[in-house]
Order: sequence, then C-alpha cells, then structure tokens
Amino acid sequence: MIPPATRIAPFYAIGIGQTAYAMQARGESVVHMEFGQPSTGAPKAAIARAHQVLDADGLGYWESPDLKARISRHYATRYGVDIATGRIPLISGASGALVLTFTAMFKPGDTIAIARPGYPAYRNTLNALHLNVLELDCGPATGYKLTAAQVAALDPAPAGLLVASPANPTGTMLTRDELAELVDVCARRNILLISDEIYHGLTYGAPAHSALEITNDVIVVNSFSKYFSMAGWRLGWLVVPEAQAETFATFNGNLFLTPPSLAQHAALVAMDQTAELEGHIENYRRNRALMLERLPRMGISRIAPPDGAFYIYADIGHLTNDTLAFCEKLVRETGVAVAPGIDFDPLEGNRFVRFSFAVSTPEVDDALGRLERWLKA
Amino acid sequence: MIPPATRIAPFYAIGIGQTAYAMQARGESVVHMEFGQPSTGAPKAAIARAHQVLDADGLGYWESPDLKARISRHYATRYGVDIATGRIPLISGASGALVLTFTAMFKPGDTIAIARPGYPAYRNTLNALHLNVLELDCGPATGYKLTAAQVAALDPAPAGLLVASPANPTGTMLTRDELAELVDVCARRNILLISDEIYHGLTYGAPAHSALEITNDVIVVNSFSKYFSMAGWRLGWLVVPEAQAETFATFNGNLFLTPPSLAQHAALVAMDQTAELEGHIENYRRNRALMLERLPRMGISRIAPPDGAFYIYADIGHLTNDTLAFCEKLVRETGVAVAPGIDFDPLEGNRFVRFSFAVSTPEVDDALGRLERWLKA
Repeated sequence: MIPPATRIAPFYAIGIGQTAYAMQARGESVVHMEFGQPSTGAPKAAIARAHQVLDADGLGYWESPDLKARISRHYATRYGVDIATGRIPLISGASGALVLTFTAMFKPGDTIAIARPGYPAYRNTLNALHLNVLELDCGPATGYKLTAAQVAALDPAPAGLLVASPANPTGTMLTRDELAELVDVCARRNILLISDEIYHGLTYGAPAHSALEITNDVIVVNSFSKYFSMAGWRLGWLVVPEAQAETFATFNGNLFLTPPSLAQHAALVAMDQTAELEGHIENYRRNRALMLERLPRMGISRIAPPDGAFYIYADIGHLTNDTLAFCEKLVRETGVAVAPGIDFDPLEGNRFVRFSFAVSTPEVDDALGRLERWLKA
Repeated sequence: MIPPATRIAPFYAIGIGQTAYAMQARGESVVHMEFGQPSTGAPKAAIARAHQVLDADGLGYWESPDLKARISRHYATRYGVDIATGRIPLISGASGALVLTFTAMFKPGDTIAIARPGYPAYRNTLNALHLNVLELDCGPATGYKLTAAQVAALDPAPAGLLVASPANPTGTMLTRDELAELVDVCARRNILLISDEIYHGLTYGAPAHSALEITNDVIVVNSFSKYFSMAGWRLGWLVVPEAQAETFATFNGNLFLTPPSLAQHAALVAMDQTAELEGHIENYRRNRALMLERLPRMGISRIAPPDGAFYIYADIGHLTNDTLAFCEKLVRETGVAVAPGIDFDPLEGNRFVRFSFAVSTPEVDDALGRLERWLKA
C-alpha cells in the first residue's frame, strides 16, 4: 500500500542521547555534550515578554513586521549592511528555512556542494528532496575549511554551495577574505551560495563576517536557537536577494504558513538582551579554554581550530576506528555523552568525536575528569 | 546568479486580508472572514500551563512523549482505535506535516489526486515539491465530495490521494461508508491515502470519522490550530503506518528537528479542556445557522453543505464572474473580508466565495447586515 521511501541516514547522536536519558531516568549522573543546543534558556526579558503576550494576544497566524525590522537593524549595526525587511522570511527554525531554500531555489537532480565534515541534516535534507550532494573534503588538509580553490576545481559546477562559518562540527571560521573568495567563485561559476550563519555571535576571537557584507546574491540562514538561546522556541530567518523575495514569501506561506507567534514576540525582546547573551559567551569561552587545556593532556590533541560555535571536533583515531562504538561505551561507562563523527562525516568520521561545550563550566570540568579517568583505565 | 524558481500561485485571500488590515489601521471597521483560523485563543488552562513552563523549563529541542500518549488516548476514546505512540510524529503545524509526508512518501513526478475546490496549499506545496497534481472535480455534481467512483476511474492510478473531511473550503464531510469506499479503492489500486482530519471536532451534525477507523494503511494529518484554537502556536501531528514510523521519525528530525516546546506543553493541557472548546463549537453553530438563514434571503442560496469546519462556500455566479474583483470591492466598500473562490478552484472559483464564520456572532450579524445593504445598493 505504501510506496518505498527515500532512505536517509539516522542521527547517531540521538541514539547516544537516548542512552544518556535512560541512564538519567535510572538516577545516574550524565553530562550532555552530544547535542548542539545551549543549556541556558531564553533571555529573562524575552520570557517576561512571553508572559505578557500570553495574557494579551490570541496568538493566531502571524508574521511580525517589527521583528523583521529589528533583524534588519541587526544587519545594519553588526555588519554595516542595509537589508530591506521584505528580504527576511521568518520560518519555524533554520531547519525549515533550509527546506524552504532548497525547495524554492533548486530542482530534483541539482547538485549542491557541502563541506565534509558537516551538519548531517544538510546531507539528509538534500537527499530527502532528491538533490544530489557533493561533499568537499574539508579535513586537516584544508584546515577544516571549505576553500574557493575546491569550488573552482569542481567540474561541472554545482547548482549550489552551502557553507557554514562558524562551522558545525568543527567550529572553524572563514576570514572575510576567504568568504569573499567563495562569493567570487560562486558568482563566476553561477553557483547559488547559501551561507549558514546560525553560529554567528558565538565566536572567541574575531567576530564572524556575514556573506551579506560582500554580496546581496546570497541566501543567508540564521536562527534564534544558538546565540539567542531559544532552541525549542523554533524560530529562524533567511535573508534572500530582493529578486527572490516574493518567491520565498509565496513558498513560505504555502509550505509553512507562519512561524510560532509567541516566539516572534519573545525574539524581538531577546535581540536587545546583549549583556545576558554575552554572559553565555563568557561561559562558553571558559569551557572552551578548559577543554583546549585538558584534552591534549589526555592525548586528544588533533582538534579542528574552534574559532566559533560551541564544539570541539577531535580526531581520536589513536583510540578507536569506530567512534560510534566508542561513544556508546563512553556514555554507558562514564555518563559523558558526545556525538560520533560518522554523523558529520560518513567517510572519515569513524576517527572523530564532537564535544558540545554549551553546558555549565562545572559540567565540563566534571566530564573532563570522567573522561580522563576512563581513558587511563 | 540565482536559478529560476518553481512558480506557484499566491494566496489571493492574503491580498484581501492586507486591504482589510490597512483599512483597520486607518480606523475603519472590518470583519475578518477571509482566513481559516479561530478568533479565540488557546484554552485558559493551556495558557496557564504555558506560564508555568515558561518559568520552569529551558525550552530546548524536545518532543513530548506525554503529548504523543495523550494523542493516542484521543484516538482510543474518540474513534475507538489503538494507535502506538511511535506512529505519531509531532511537527510545527499541519503545513509542515504535509511537506514531511509528501517528501517521505513520494518522488518527483509522482501524481497526487486532490479535490477541486480544495485548500490551495495542497496544490502549491505539491507543485513546489515537483509532484504532479491531479484535481478531481468535486463541485455540485458530486455534492462537493470526492467519491470512490472518481478515484476508480483514474487511469493510470495516481501515487497518492489527499482528501479532507470536513473539507476546506466547502465544509462537506464524508460518511463512514464513503470514507470506507475511498479506503477500499486506494487499497485495490495501490494509492497512498492521506486523510486530512484538521477540521475534526468542528462538526454540526454527526461527528467526523477518522480513516483510522477503517485502515492503518493511511497517513492522517491533524493539528492544534482549529478545534483546539491554537493556530499561532504551530503544532500539528501525523499518524503513520507502523512500517513507516521510523522513516517519518528520521525525515522529521532532519527536515524539522523538533516542534515548538512550549506549544507541546500547552497542547497536552488543551486536550482536556472539552467544555471550553465545545463552547467555541456552539458559537460556530450559531454563526452557521445565522448565515444559512440570511444568505439565501439575499439570493445567495447555492451553498455547499457545511457539515463541518467553519466555512460557507457559496456560488455567487449570479452576481459576478470575477470573485477576486468582487471580494476586493466588497472589502473596500463594506469592510467585510472574504476569500475569493480562485484560491480554492483555479477553474471555476471565479463564481465562488468562501466565508469563514470563526468570528463572534455579533460580527457575523454585522457582516451579514453590511453585505445585505451593499447587495441591495
């Protein structure tokens, strides 16, 4: 009765998480470093605004013009670029924003290039939508970065290029020049550039550059889930070229109608809570420093440069050639849950693990202690 | 730089709504009967629960096992069927649930049959995903219902059939026997049946039957937007066959991650607020009676049988052969906003309009008075 479905790979980190939650339910102590989400909640003022709106508004289908204007202002103040509000579709999360982008801009059989390692839902969602995925090797040889030279060498040119800076799982960032080179090669080769900027704001040295500083011919993806610490509120946005704005609005309305109304009210307030949000970054900065100090002491020293985001992507090929089994054993024996590299890299991921340090500093300290004792034993 | 996008039709009702909101902003009095959403908010107890959770929970990515169990219990008590919780994906709205279903179950070029008139996003979303749409004429000749005979006559058989009961824009409902005949012809012809049950609970005579009373080989779509009056909370669900549960979970996780967390907490409570929700139905029942009494007096008597939902779909071919122009003139001159039939029926919709009566009874009374005076003038 039911036709065969397109097959896509599972998220192995979810299985690790399920083991970890089952252990917690049995009263065992667990440190969740397997998922990419802040352990903090929304800014206090955003929550206060949500309380107000809950009592005052019927929360029907709605798109907030004020939030679009505030996002536009964010681009002006943070990046010095002028973005008309009509170029900013709001969507229930960056995931849906990617589905919208892939559906509106490509046709089945088109090829989209992405970095390997990379966020697994890129590959899976592209496959689900019958787009071909071309994985570019962004391992140690390129400093875990996607380079313009790689894109220039592709024959034929792909229809699209999806790049994230800061990247997941590595945390690597492109300099402004590197980003400009990517923009340039995409323009020359007629490749649609999609810039995933979901980890912007989560940086530990130079701030991240938006592709919009260089061109308007780009689709930019962003969300309130990471820097704004509102993952479960499910609110993302896009910036699209002026010429595509109507297409995106029409596709968005049909595919998804509107994003969550309460989240839009709260997000508008969240965007002004800089002090509280920068406090989270200070926490991440401490956690990152702790990990970069203590992991090498345990022999885990081949680490991608974690310029941004809240991840450490580490080559542990000296310990295992099956990091899924390693992660399962690690969580069962220590309660430390981390993500296996195969989620991010189907070819070489079996040598890698990804630690998320978006937890408290005492938890990072605790997890590092458990890991160190376990590796010694 | 940007490839050409698949073109899909706009929602014309949105344009009518924009005119209406602009009039309201100028201080003019408007009755919004153009959109399909309750004018009431979430049940009071659901809002109270949301307040509690806002203060107690970080609202990370989350899928509520308790809500899945409660939905399963809903199927047991309302329809007498046993649905395992693993068969119930939760999604940010029924719109996303349809995107998920179409993506997981079909491949580009597959043909999906739908009713004409029907919900415009069906056609548009199918087109956006490169699926072929086969519209079955469900006008006066079939009592505005999709029939098994129509499906039996299709050559070749389509890959899927998407049917809604109660239907939008007509409000017509299938009897249990009619639904069973559709299930039967789909089973015989190897057609995947998708049953959109989003208007269940909003019925004015016999209750609606779920396709799950007849078969497990069906995808059922539902949501908290209509009966539960939580449109802007963006929460929908599916019931899928056991054999497809894992596929849907994997696709859902990749395409959409998780639905809004606060909405899941609130929805769990909303499902027990029967007295308050049935009060909304009594309001709709009054509104429906008022319209069915007074529209014919104005000469608007060719109306699809409004068994359920909160719509009146009326043939006004004696007044105009361009209902988009009619609706624009109507809203500008009276403040009564209604949806033009071309949103629902690209062939014959120019003779039809859809009134949504999910507003207050005084508003319906007021709108009918304005319409009557306007038609006389």
